[in-house]
Amino acid sequence: MFRTNTCGELRLSDVNKTVTLSGWVQRARKMGGMTFVDLRDRYGITQLVFSEDSNAELCEKASHLGREYVIQATGVVSERQSKNANIPTGDIEIIVSELNILNEAATPPFTIENNTDGGDDIRMKYRYLDLRREAVRKNLEIRHQMTMEVRRYLDSMNFIEVETPMLIGSTPEGARDFVVPSRMNPGQFYALPQSPQLFKQLLMVSGFDRYFQIVKCFRDEDLRADRQPEFTQIDCEMSFVEQEDVITLFEGMAKHLFKTIRGVELTEAFPRITWHDAMKYYGSDKPDTRFEMKFVELMDIMKGHGFGVFDSAEYIGGICAKGAATYTRKQLDALTDFVRRPQIGAKGMVYARVEADGTVKSSVDKFYSQEVLQQMKAAFAAEAGDLILILSGDDAMKTRKQLCELRLEVAQQLGLRDKNKFSCLWVVDFPLFEYSEEGRYMAMHHPFTSPKPEDIPLLDTDMGAVRANAYDMVINGVEVGGGSIRIYDSELQNKMFALLGFTPERAQQQFGWLLDAFKYGAPPHGGLAYGLDRWVSLFAGLDSIRDCIAFPKNNSGRDTMIDAPSVLDPAQLDELNIALNLKEGK
Amino acid sequence: MFRTNTCGELRLSDVNKTVTLSGWVQRARKMGGMTFVDLRDRYGITQLVFSEDSNAELCEKASHLGREYVIQATGVVSERQSKNANIPTGDIEIIVSELNILNEAATPPFTIENNTDGGDDIRMKYRYLDLRREAVRKNLEIRHQMTMEVRRYLDSMNFIEVETPMLIGSTPEGARDFVVPSRMNPGQFYALPQSPQLFKQLLMVSGFDRYFQIVKCFRDEDLRADRQPEFTQIDCEMSFVEQEDVITLFEGMAKHLFKTIRGVELTEAFPRITWHDAMKYYGSDKPDTRFEMKFVELMDIMKGHGFGVFDSAEYIGGICAKGAATYTRKQLDALTDFVRRPQIGAKGMVYARVEADGTVKSSVDKFYSQEVLQQMKAAFAAEAGDLILILSGDDAMKTRKQLCELRLEVAQQLGLRDKNKFSCLWVVDFPLFEYSEEGRYMAMHHPFTSPKPEDIPLLDTDMGAVRANAYDMVINGVEVGGGSIRIYDSELQNKMFALLGFTPERAQQQFGWLLDAFKYGAPPHGGLAYGLDRWVSLFAGLDSIRDCIAFPKNNSGRDTMIDAPSVLDPAQLDELNIALNLKEGK
Repeated sequence: MFRTNTCGELRLSDVNKTVTLSGWVQRARKMGGMTFVDLRDRYGITQLVFSEDSNAELCEKASHLGREYVIQATGVVSERQSKNANIPTGDIEIIVSELNILNEAATPPFTIENNTDGGDDIRMKYRYLDLRREAVRKNLEIRHQMTMEVRRYLDSMNFIEVETPMLIGSTPEGARDFVVPSRMNPGQFYALPQSPQLFKQLLMVSGFDRYFQIVKCFRDEDLRADRQPEFTQIDCEMSFVEQEDVITLFEGMAKHLFKTIRGVELTEAFPRITWHDAMKYYGSDKPDTRFEMKFVELMDIMKGHGFGVFDSAEYIGGICAKGAATYTRKQLDALTDFVRRPQIGAKGMVYARVEADGTVKSSVDKFYSQEVLQQMKAAFAAEAGDLILILSGDDAMKTRKQLCELRLEVAQQLGLRDKNKFSCLWVVDFPLFEYSEEGRYMAMHHPFTSPKPEDIPLLDTDMGAVRANAYDMVINGVEVGGGSIRIYDSELQNKMFALLGFTPERAQQQFGWLLDAFKYGAPPHGGLAYGLDRWVSLFAGLDSIRDCIAFPKNNSGRDTMIDAPSVLDPAQLDELNIALNLKEGK
Repeated sequence: MFRTNTCGELRLSDVNKTVTLSGWVQRARKMGGMTFVDLRDRYGITQLVFSEDSNAELCEKASHLGREYVIQATGVVSERQSKNANIPTGDIEIIVSELNILNEAATPPFTIENNTDGGDDIRMKYRYLDLRREAVRKNLEIRHQMTMEVRRYLDSMNFIEVETPMLIGSTPEGARDFVVPSRMNPGQFYALPQSPQLFKQLLMVSGFDRYFQIVKCFRDEDLRADRQPEFTQIDCEMSFVEQEDVITLFEGMAKHLFKTIRGVELTEAFPRITWHDAMKYYGSDKPDTRFEMKFVELMDIMKGHGFGVFDSAEYIGGICAKGAATYTRKQLDALTDFVRRPQIGAKGMVYARVEADGTVKSSVDKFYSQEVLQQMKAAFAAEAGDLILILSGDDAMKTRKQLCELRLEVAQQLGLRDKNKFSCLWVVDFPLFEYSEEGRYMAMHHPFTSPKPEDIPLLDTDMGAVRANAYDMVINGVEVGGGSIRIYDSELQNKMFALLGFTPERAQQQFGWLLDAFKYGAPPHGGLAYGLDRWVSLFAGLDSIRDCIAFPKNNSGRDTMIDAPSVLDPAQLDELNIALNLKEGK
């Protein structure tokens, strides 16, 4: 028996008990004739005390304990003279009579403290030490709690978790598939799933009625800050449902999670916004609604007054930053530089301050009379002390996206993106198709997404106007999940394939087994999938999903701790019936 | 809204309610002026009634409903004239006033009934239809319940579930690894984990204290009836524990599962048997202890009486089948043929019946006096009506394994392997090493398994006698899980590597990152892993793990439903920097 208690549980009520604790030495310090050791485990920190008077040898031994040594100590729980109100065990200490060094430790390459001196790279290489830090470990604890509560909630709603296969088939369009050579089937490959989409639809055909799975998915693509080659989805599907049923049930799950994980009771229904309005008012299909600052369109007011940039624009719109008229010229120049960065791509920015007396002072005063500027002010319902920022451009969608970036940046500067405030909403009525750069309509989600029944006639006349029974859940500007009602009528499905330019042969080749399954009685069904990593990051207040993943990969898809991926033994390649085919210069 | 209720929930108390149900047509039959339809969903079956008198058109429509059509019906709940006591909804029926065909269905290739006419191959190809059968679906429901209860129990014991990576590195000895080419790192490969063993040990170094994960693992090996290329483990690890702590906690989990999943309350501690005794008495490290029939060794009694086969044997042992003296000569010949099959490999079998008068009549009477046979009878504590079966051979271990097969076969024939009876035990004190066919000692589990402290001196003198702190949980002859206490002392670990023939360089190459981690303060730790598929099979009374997996693969590692694995597009291979390298004749 290595311990009677953990380092997080002893209290004043335990005084005089003889206990044994085990853990890591957070620090050891000598003071007068005493040695104090902070002993740490996952549950907390407890102070150990060694006294020269009572046992000089033991006290001396304790004073030589290095950081991160693993020790076992037995002693009597005792009330502390100087209590530490910052930790739950701060009222007591252990007067140690026996000390056992279980393992020594080399000096860690960075300090195991919440505020560490270790940079990203070194912490990733020694991730097992980084995980000792409470700041990192608690993210994993939140992750565990979240998956527990997701399962508890869905189980109570009659969902059953079904494991779908990891070794599946690649599709002709699966350019982002990770593939796995099969030794037993020479020349053939499995693929790792990008999502269990088709399997969950099969389970609906199988009558499973309510399915979920918390499941690893894989995508071989260039990585950004919030992407990982392997990521985790909360994947769900239901039968005999309409959009309203899905939204209601999963709004309930979100509220359950907010309550159990964050202690936030959300009583109101989540607002819903159409995709069209989301783009119009926020320039984004995942608007951050912790703050208002909606777009105001200014074409009617600002056009035709001789300011060439606006007069030739296809879109003029702006935001009103409450109380930001105090922004200096330097700050405004920095914002202009911000929107002109190539990633954002605006040509410039017009600004206007509402002065204390209500007059408007703008960067384009020479083109606009105070009367027009007052009309503009009224359009924003701006007040004295407010700052108005305006962008324009020859492509409304592109300009809106630029304005979205500006809105988020200004909100960040004004402290409006509070990580402890949560604003949830549903974005609905997505377009069924989007026009691709190759000049054809593509499915915005996937080809099984159902159009809104009332828009079906538009399939033949105005594809771009057809809305989908698709929905995203957005929290604080993060798309945490999304899904759709699926097509279950094979005639409509065939029409969709035709519209998307699939020949019947290609549809059969790519989705054959799902289409076959649908012949045997497919129920109406729909579902959604959440990105677990993103949702945990949000609840844990993290800037990157990497911080809520135990062993993440870097932007090159490498795990620097275990040094993977790596080269294989030629014999192993041979066994798998493959050979390397490296290009010049690689 | 597609339904107000499921097909499993309406009762007499619902009579006169107007309800809407949706589901699949199990069958439709016309009787007199009525049409009866059994409507099925995951929750049950409800009878729909259509009457010619009240609505001839609707009744006619209903009579044409095909099997597996998906329909929606609205009507009034009504008490049945002839109740069906076999189903929970058997007291009521729905007098239907509205019928909506949601989807037609082609005739299924086999009947969707518990006793289906479909063979294995066709059911696998159409697995989505097979899953509609209650007999199959309930296995998946048990699986879901089991994982819920495992998580509930472990969470209550302070375990946290941590996802370890799926894309890891291959090891030089990872011949059974599935590998994954990395597009971003040309010429390099990930491997899929055979188990998260090293990561869970890292998490202990990280101070996670109690970890678990229900996780997919992968092994690219030739498949047998109870193996799949991807399988699911309940993987667990704990810090600051000794063997007794691990066994106690996980015996608690097993009892929790028996109670919640099977309604079986196990109050006694699980028996423990040493590996040595398991081999001696059952010829197996996973003995089926639902019945006794322990081996009795007969060297002392049966040797030296002139029966050459026994006289030259290194091992003579037998079992006593209670009450089986009625076995005919034909049955005994069949048993002899059974043990002589090449998979078992015995040369022959000796049998002896205990007659009603207590005398023993054997197949080798001419070599043995009744006095010797009576000694033998006494050794078995055999009684009138019992049948004694004896094997011998020149290799004790091999002969024991043959006798084990015989024991299981006879028990099967005698109906002693009752799927509704459960016998659990721990097999402990495994040898640390096993002598391989290549003529050297190998780690029986893995090189991190801790020897028993009292056996450490034997490492230098008698490796074969060193026992490990390793344990398996066995239920009904199935090894459902196993694990060990790990070495956390680096000196002992280095000694183990040396004994196993690892050079320090090779140890570093293969396990470097774990050995590095251990330098920074490794706690004492140990754990175990359960095979979820096996355990579910056991609880569900299945003969193959395949039946508790939603989408299993066949013995060639193929998913015949989705036809995976499959060939890849040459462009995709090129993108991945690999080429096929097929051998002649493949």
